[in-house]
Amino acid sequence: MRAELIAVGTELLLGQIVNTNARFLAEELAALGIDAYYQTVVGDNAVRIKEALHIARSRADLIMMTGGLGPTLDDLTRDVLAEDLGRKLEIHEPTLAKIREFYAKRGLPMAESNVRQALLPEGAEPLPNDEGMAVGSAITVNNVHYVLLPGPPREMEPMFERYVKPWLTQRLPEYKPLFSVMLKFAGIGESSLEHELIDLIGNQQDPSIAPYAKDGEVAIRLTTRAESPEEAARKMRNVQEEIRRRVGAYLYASRDIPLEQAVIDLLGGRGQTFAAAESCTGGLISHLVTGIPGSSAVFRGSVVCYTNLVKSKVLQVPLEILQGEHSPGAVSSETAELLARNVMQEMEADYGLSVTGVAGPGSSEGKPVGLVYIGVATRSGGVSSCRLQWTGSRSAIQRRAAKHALYRLWQTAGGQTATNPL
Amino acid sequence: MRAELIAVGTELLLGQIVNTNARFLAEELAALGIDAYYQTVVGDNAVRIKEALHIARSRADLIMMTGGLGPTLDDLTRDVLAEDLGRKLEIHEPTLAKIREFYAKRGLPMAESNVRQALLPEGAEPLPNDEGMAVGSAITVNNVHYVLLPGPPREMEPMFERYVKPWLTQRLPEYKPLFSVMLKFAGIGESSLEHELIDLIGNQQDPSIAPYAKDGEVAIRLTTRAESPEEAARKMRNVQEEIRRRVGAYLYASRDIPLEQAVIDLLGGRGQTFAAAESCTGGLISHLVTGIPGSSAVFRGSVVCYTNLVKSKVLQVPLEILQGEHSPGAVSSETAELLARNVMQEMEADYGLSVTGVAGPGSSEGKPVGLVYIGVATRSGGVSSCRLQWTGSRSAIQRRAAKHALYRLWQTAGGQTATNPL
Repeated sequence: MRAELIAVGTELLLGQIVNTNARFLAEELAALGIDAYYQTVVGDNAVRIKEALHIARSRADLIMMTGGLGPTLDDLTRDVLAEDLGRKLEIHEPTLAKIREFYAKRGLPMAESNVRQALLPEGAEPLPNDEGMAVGSAITVNNVHYVLLPGPPREMEPMFERYVKPWLTQRLPEYKPLFSVMLKFAGIGESSLEHELIDLIGNQQDPSIAPYAKDGEVAIRLTTRAESPEEAARKMRNVQEEIRRRVGAYLYASRDIPLEQAVIDLLGGRGQTFAAAESCTGGLISHLVTGIPGSSAVFRGSVVCYTNLVKSKVLQVPLEILQGEHSPGAVSSETAELLARNVMQEMEADYGLSVTGVAGPGSSEGKPVGLVYIGVATRSGGVSSCRLQWTGSRSAIQRRAAKHALYRLWQTAGGQTATNPL
Repeated sequence: MRAELIAVGTELLLGQIVNTNARFLAEELAALGIDAYYQTVVGDNAVRIKEALHIARSRADLIMMTGGLGPTLDDLTRDVLAEDLGRKLEIHEPTLAKIREFYAKRGLPMAESNVRQALLPEGAEPLPNDEGMAVGSAITVNNVHYVLLPGPPREMEPMFERYVKPWLTQRLPEYKPLFSVMLKFAGIGESSLEHELIDLIGNQQDPSIAPYAKDGEVAIRLTTRAESPEEAARKMRNVQEEIRRRVGAYLYASRDIPLEQAVIDLLGGRGQTFAAAESCTGGLISHLVTGIPGSSAVFRGSVVCYTNLVKSKVLQVPLEILQGEHSPGAVSSETAELLARNVMQEMEADYGLSVTGVAGPGSSEGKPVGLVYIGVATRSGGVSSCRLQWTGSRSAIQRRAAKHALYRLWQTAGGQTATNPL
């Protein structure tokens, strides 16, 4: 099967929105093993939509169109396709009933144009829209498959997952579903991780091994096609174990969760808590952690000790450590360890975490941009710190420092990750 | 002039990246008054690139191609275009010298394939690549303009701004540059702002008035075409004044800066400081503020008082206010005001800012999700608070609360915004 994507919408031609639908569908089709050689964007214009359709039909046998299924006269996709196929439009009664009910419930009059959202080319299979009004449709004419999807991604993506994917796989006789496992790492850079796994990444065909890097975390995605989850798990077991043998110390999850979630899960499972003192990360650790629902059971709070005044007054780091020609200074292992211990004690937590460093753009205390100390304190009295040096923008350094600090906490708390059994 | 965009790259067809180049160029072309009726994406395949080129030429007289200018044999765009136009490729010597120097400086051998990045169709105008290696090019043949741009946005966008835009405007006899003014608002919702300005937005043609909403802030963009900045300023003066008359209390800047920048500028200009106590925003205010370089002169620090223990122990809010059947509770104006005052005093700041509320997903103290109190304290002894109720996801509520708190601080500190004179 050879696919072509046509996105309909003048707002795309004006650059008002990005065509994320093309990326989503391209990735989904690739995962189904369907080649797609072209993507086209066209405005809300019947002549040009029809031209795009004709060109697509000359070189593809699966044409997926997004957008132009709304109620207004600008929404032309289904009209153009039906006319082009020589079919009438017919009303999909369940969709019309849903639209009428929507307005009735709210006591609003329904504009007659809303009926358009319930129209389908005669003989097409309806694709329910669980997140919106306009019904989608799928139809095969002269061995060419046509799929019409709504433009808003939050309607289109679930419609694809729930209704289009099964419709397509029925038409792919050789189809085996794709299984993947995401291995998430922290405390190790992308290039170091790739270096450790370079022979696996290069030689391994099935499962495939693909590295990803995003937002200060790195990940490895294992992917294979199999008849069942059990077969997929069997195919992935050896490579998962080999990766764990080499870089298991940095593997914080074998599913796609952020590091802060792994920390909350680890401490929350034991009824433990932590508190943080953030200097150069400026609240980012707190922001990441409190983005996780339920974090209040684990995260006591933090002090964003952005100035020496706050480090000394709120967190009792002696001024003779922070200031003066022969002092260690605010960016030092001494300060990191005191901050971690004192915030733990002050907030009565099981762990204290601290970050102090130079996020840039300028240097500080004569210390270079990117120098960061991370401290971790535990209830039992242990305090440790590590020194890191990064390069990059202010926000990149803040993000790497925040993630590395969370990794040190996870590691100090004895975090371990099991093999994903699928 | 009628344009068509062709993006070349198999990674786009596989959904590995989003075609943000199309959005960027579409918006830029629209701003130049150039219509674009189609966008196409095609893979790294000579036959299909040529087909896309032929189709584009049948319906456009400006063809802008992005991607496929790199050193590898997969990078085919310039080869296909040159062959199609019946021209040879020639070396752009300044680019080749730059590439050789890059490798020489690093003591690395230069692979011969890198020469490809210095190739141009014979007779084309070179477009310098200030951010990378591959040279761009522009050429007009038989009244059709062709522009070749590199794929990476951080190379493509500056090349467009600096070299393509002047090249295009020379070919647009009626061209007048576009001027715009961004008016940034806080403390008012998008729908309320639109309601206040509905007649202006609906009736005003020149300058055009377009509302935007993003990340808890709302903005109005005024746009006009004019011969000079003075003419543009004259055309925009009346409408800027009318907008200020109606909603000036919420206008924190007449240029495109985030609210946290306006707060830093306002307090920094007077040598004043602030400190924050963040409960439901969980560090987001601190994170936003410390993202601005130079914020350390203004922002003392904060306490992320996510738990009652931290509110009482670190910020001295009495437990009888936080807990108990007849107490106001942690989410109350009493707590907000005490937090603001105490963090100001503890951190010796000129202003104290606090947020306490229910970010969700669950309710708290029997209070509904989205209920938020914001407190502001000033050195002179004044403390005030306001009560807000929002709907939306946890992260949306956190973001709106953080932005609204910064707005209250800006307003309390007497922030005012001048008309943008252009």
